[in-house]
Amino acid sequence: MAFDLKGWMQPHLLRVEQALSDWVDAQAPAGLGEAMRHAVLDGGKRLRPLLLLATAEAVGAEGSIAALRAACALELIHAYSLVHDDMPCMDNDVLRRGKPTVHVQFGQAQALLAGDALQALAFELLTPQDGSVPPTVQAACAGLLARASGYWGMAGGQAIDLAHVGKRLSEDQLRQMHRLKTGALLLCSVQMGVACGADVPDTARLALSRFGEVLGLAFQVVDDILDVTADSATLGKTAGKDAAADKPTYVALMGLQAAQRYADQLAQEAMQALTDTGLPRERLAALQGLAGMVVHRSH
Amino acid sequence: MAFDLKGWMQPHLLRVEQALSDWVDAQAPAGLGEAMRHAVLDGGKRLRPLLLLATAEAVGAEGSIAALRAACALELIHAYSLVHDDMPCMDNDVLRRGKPTVHVQFGQAQALLAGDALQALAFELLTPQDGSVPPTVQAACAGLLARASGYWGMAGGQAIDLAHVGKRLSEDQLRQMHRLKTGALLLCSVQMGVACGADVPDTARLALSRFGEVLGLAFQVVDDILDVTADSATLGKTAGKDAAADKPTYVALMGLQAAQRYADQLAQEAMQALTDTGLPRERLAALQGLAGMVVHRSH
Repeated sequence: MAFDLKGWMQPHLLRVEQALSDWVDAQAPAGLGEAMRHAVLDGGKRLRPLLLLATAEAVGAEGSIAALRAACALELIHAYSLVHDDMPCMDNDVLRRGKPTVHVQFGQAQALLAGDALQALAFELLTPQDGSVPPTVQAACAGLLARASGYWGMAGGQAIDLAHVGKRLSEDQLRQMHRLKTGALLLCSVQMGVACGADVPDTARLALSRFGEVLGLAFQVVDDILDVTADSATLGKTAGKDAAADKPTYVALMGLQAAQRYADQLAQEAMQALTDTGLPRERLAALQGLAGMVVHRSH
Repeated sequence: MAFDLKGWMQPHLLRVEQALSDWVDAQAPAGLGEAMRHAVLDGGKRLRPLLLLATAEAVGAEGSIAALRAACALELIHAYSLVHDDMPCMDNDVLRRGKPTVHVQFGQAQALLAGDALQALAFELLTPQDGSVPPTVQAACAGLLARASGYWGMAGGQAIDLAHVGKRLSEDQLRQMHRLKTGALLLCSVQMGVACGADVPDTARLALSRFGEVLGLAFQVVDDILDVTADSATLGKTAGKDAAADKPTYVALMGLQAAQRYADQLAQEAMQALTDTGLPRERLAALQGLAGMVVHRSH
């Protein structure tokens, strides 16, 4: 019987939305909470949280509060990066998830602070002081998230992106940029999910990391494809902006058809990595479904 | 015999400078490491790291690698907040520690990313993966730092500051703003120092927290005083800018002389809190010396 991905996603998305709404405090000083909630709530695909929860399920940690906290922490990091990316000194984007971007709605200074505070809140979520998450898991997750979002992760990838607008990159350079810019956080989703499990065999741990890496790359290739094939309404953000900004993309590098073939090949590699985990097939169904969704998504 | 504060500070400052230089990687992608090092190295007073190391000494954790890492993490958070504060959409400052600010030297986009990456690196330093710091200490320090720098800490205080330029605040409102904006991170310096110690008695823990709170307030009152009494060359930043920007300050609220008396009173409260710790006097000498320095500093 085919796995019902939508049926799996629905309750998990509800948990994530509810937790994000509970944990991003609207009362924070001087409108900061409001700006942060604008950035986080309503409209995200929640891919990273879902990947984390599906990985937790694969390693037998479904339903753990540690996993839910890590899932939300990832989304806060993702959200802060979008807030800062959208600012006039970066991509200068006015539309995000169909809504005005944070700096358009609340001003640049508040957007800067909201992004900064979202990053701090991510680490706050990972380190509850009520005994609900073991210190070993707190330390492991905080370490993974810090490395994935920092200068040898997401922020470093953005710096490479910034430095190469209008320049032609080799495939290796492009891959390095995306491995950091978007890949690191997607890989981290899988790794934090594993960190929430107990006694995960090394074989499974390594294969899941490979899955996370390949999926991150696939995600970016598809992103580049959608930038040229989809329209703004479907994307919920400005389409064609990479091409307009003369940004290096897989489509620019290899052409549309070859990029599509490459995405399919990466999807197959991701599925193979799941098989290589040696974990029971029924526990891997959600990860398989999500990987398929990443490659075949329309926005 | 009087305590030789300078003699105590010198080796500790050397350790911190060396560690910061070792741990902020110049090779990070696309010039990001360079921008981060510009923000962090050469010129800071390192008050927060010194407070942390002095607290660690008070609770018997001198020389611990956990304390050194926490000390540097604090400085990275402080440095990132200055980078973002100086940007055109915030204070628009061009001079910091006698050097061009990061956005002047490297551009606004790189400054934004450098600040973001410095915050992530702070949490990276707290969570080494080599077994050198126990997971309980990693989790405790990451939790304290996240809360001190987030929306109910430093970032929240900055939001209040931003929202009240040109408005008159009550003393309570002003105190709340500074308790968050600068006080939270100074208190955190003390609390992370305590977290590096083993079996610290509750009496000492609570009295040290009170010390940290009072010192944070004193620091800000003195900062406001120096903004009107010192010149730019001594400060290493633009003097008189609070008054020029019509920012609420203790001097604006209570007048210069009353603000100076208030700073002296807070200094006495801080010393009393140290006595109340019940810790051996010789272990408290460095904290006493630093508190005196905060109140009597000229920049």
